[in-house]
Amino acid sequence: MTTVTTTTELNPHLPPADSRARVKEFMQTLQDEICAKLEAVDGKGKFQEDAWQREEGGGGRSRILKSGAVLEQGGVGFSEVWGDQLPPAILAQRPDAGGHSFYATGTSMVLHPWNPYAPTVHLNYRYFEAGPVWWFGGGADLTPYYPFKEDAQHFHQTYKNACDRHHPEYYSVFKRWCDEYFYLKHRQETRGVGGLFFDYQNGQGDIYRGHEAESTAALYNKKLGEIPPRSWEDLFGFVQDCGRAFLPAYVPILEGRSAMEYNDHQRQFQLYRRGRYVEFNLVYDRGTIFGLQTNGRTESILMSLPPLVRWEYGYQPEPHSPEAELYSYFLKPQDWLLEGK
Amino acid sequence: MTTVTTTTELNPHLPPADSRARVKEFMQTLQDEICAKLEAVDGKGKFQEDAWQREEGGGGRSRILKSGAVLEQGGVGFSEVWGDQLPPAILAQRPDAGGHSFYATGTSMVLHPWNPYAPTVHLNYRYFEAGPVWWFGGGADLTPYYPFKEDAQHFHQTYKNACDRHHPEYYSVFKRWCDEYFYLKHRQETRGVGGLFFDYQNGQGDIYRGHEAESTAALYNKKLGEIPPRSWEDLFGFVQDCGRAFLPAYVPILEGRSAMEYNDHQRQFQLYRRGRYVEFNLVYDRGTIFGLQTNGRTESILMSLPPLVRWEYGYQPEPHSPEAELYSYFLKPQDWLLEGK
Repeated sequence: MTTVTTTTELNPHLPPADSRARVKEFMQTLQDEICAKLEAVDGKGKFQEDAWQREEGGGGRSRILKSGAVLEQGGVGFSEVWGDQLPPAILAQRPDAGGHSFYATGTSMVLHPWNPYAPTVHLNYRYFEAGPVWWFGGGADLTPYYPFKEDAQHFHQTYKNACDRHHPEYYSVFKRWCDEYFYLKHRQETRGVGGLFFDYQNGQGDIYRGHEAESTAALYNKKLGEIPPRSWEDLFGFVQDCGRAFLPAYVPILEGRSAMEYNDHQRQFQLYRRGRYVEFNLVYDRGTIFGLQTNGRTESILMSLPPLVRWEYGYQPEPHSPEAELYSYFLKPQDWLLEGK
Repeated sequence: MTTVTTTTELNPHLPPADSRARVKEFMQTLQDEICAKLEAVDGKGKFQEDAWQREEGGGGRSRILKSGAVLEQGGVGFSEVWGDQLPPAILAQRPDAGGHSFYATGTSMVLHPWNPYAPTVHLNYRYFEAGPVWWFGGGADLTPYYPFKEDAQHFHQTYKNACDRHHPEYYSVFKRWCDEYFYLKHRQETRGVGGLFFDYQNGQGDIYRGHEAESTAALYNKKLGEIPPRSWEDLFGFVQDCGRAFLPAYVPILEGRSAMEYNDHQRQFQLYRRGRYVEFNLVYDRGTIFGLQTNGRTESILMSLPPLVRWEYGYQPEPHSPEAELYSYFLKPQDWLLEGK
């Protein structure tokens, strides 16, 4: 263990010797804690686990809860993979990782509640190492079907609190990054009310390498590009805090909204809006497309898709309805924490 | 009219002066004939038309039939668009079209019957001009939920007859191209039993420019790459025959299968398999992705998506069931016309 301490002390920007084991354990524990709490909240559904191996190296455990009392479907996955070379799509973003073997581990989750008043939610954290290169990425975002400002505010405030413990600019940058990443260009809609999203976090300031809009890149480089480098431990601590923020950010919303009465009108709108989730994941989501095109485990990748979905040509919400309010306000980027205070 | 005749006689590989008007009229007539016949077969549903304009030039008419007696949904679109420059995705395939304004017209259709024994079907024909460059593309393919060899044979035989009137190698090449284009790599399944597909047909032999597998490219170049160039009139005649083959290829299957009794087990399997249609169209289909990423009319592009869809993690068909037979035989490329003869 002496080696670890020494390395960290000498160069805080290199991972410690036990980095993989520590991040892996965090990712697995996060999966365990989320599944345990969701089973308790649901009261009926149980997660079924499929453990799988990857031929090229590594594997994972996919857990799915079907037809619970509160959740219509919930999928929570953990994976740990390694190989000789990162795939071209990632190397294009991180050319300095070329020529090195890689290691990657992560947890991801999508929950689809029965009740149309309860929002769908997504979480993902991931960690990569390839030779001297390493980074964390991930986030969490909320997709309501019906408009409740207090839900968006609670979700954002919980994540802002986690961010503020680490850096005063994290929330404003990663909130904006989320709005721009989870955007359906062909619908001109955000996927939902957002949350946090970040990628390529390696402690250096100038690592904004996403495909996101120039405005976020400029904001990122202005706010995080000139601060002193943050250590591996700093970033791992931040990611852990984000992971732990999920249950307090989402469970109160899920419990409260699941107690509300609804009818077939709301159910049909929920099924229709779930179509947007499918469109985002299959047309835009880097992780999904990358996985499908590179021999990932298809059933685990598509565990995020809703169990039942509708499409309806030419749908328009009734003017002045809650559905119309979702479109006019909740599907555009908003500063939720400036609202209603 | 003298000019037209002279041009055609002098260089049969250039379009006649009235090419755009003639192809447009064919595309509109095809839409009209298909819609009229489908309304007659359905007996209850009527197509509703939305006419739309495109800001950059052109427009179209999208027709949808919802909740008929036979069809749960049918969408049949016509469009005619023009502009200063083809989009980069097409120019990469046809660099010789660069620097020219373009014109494109086409008809496309997807039908989703209620009865799980009746297959979904897709048709698309399109025509492009850009300066001296022009080509036809399109095809039709059948996606059954339940396995009936005679349906696949009837569909393929009808299209083979249309092909054989024009060239003895068209069917074998364009049938294979269809199998390779409508393939879900992440599922290792064809979308259905195929049909015909071709692109970049300009009468020259060496115009295989798709992203398809090497094997089809080699077959194409062997069988069509060394034949004498075909004229614009030859190809337009072939495309017209393909278009006219649709109703006799599909309507007998639709009518026969729609008369069969089915229960919720078959309905649930149909909804599940419709998920594959969504996955193909959003992950792989060039037209869909291209349209979504370049400001096409979203509702018209996504008119192909099924009205109701299920996803189910880890689904496997019962051994020796009709569902298992679909997977083991019908979702792999087959020489349908050699079977059962």
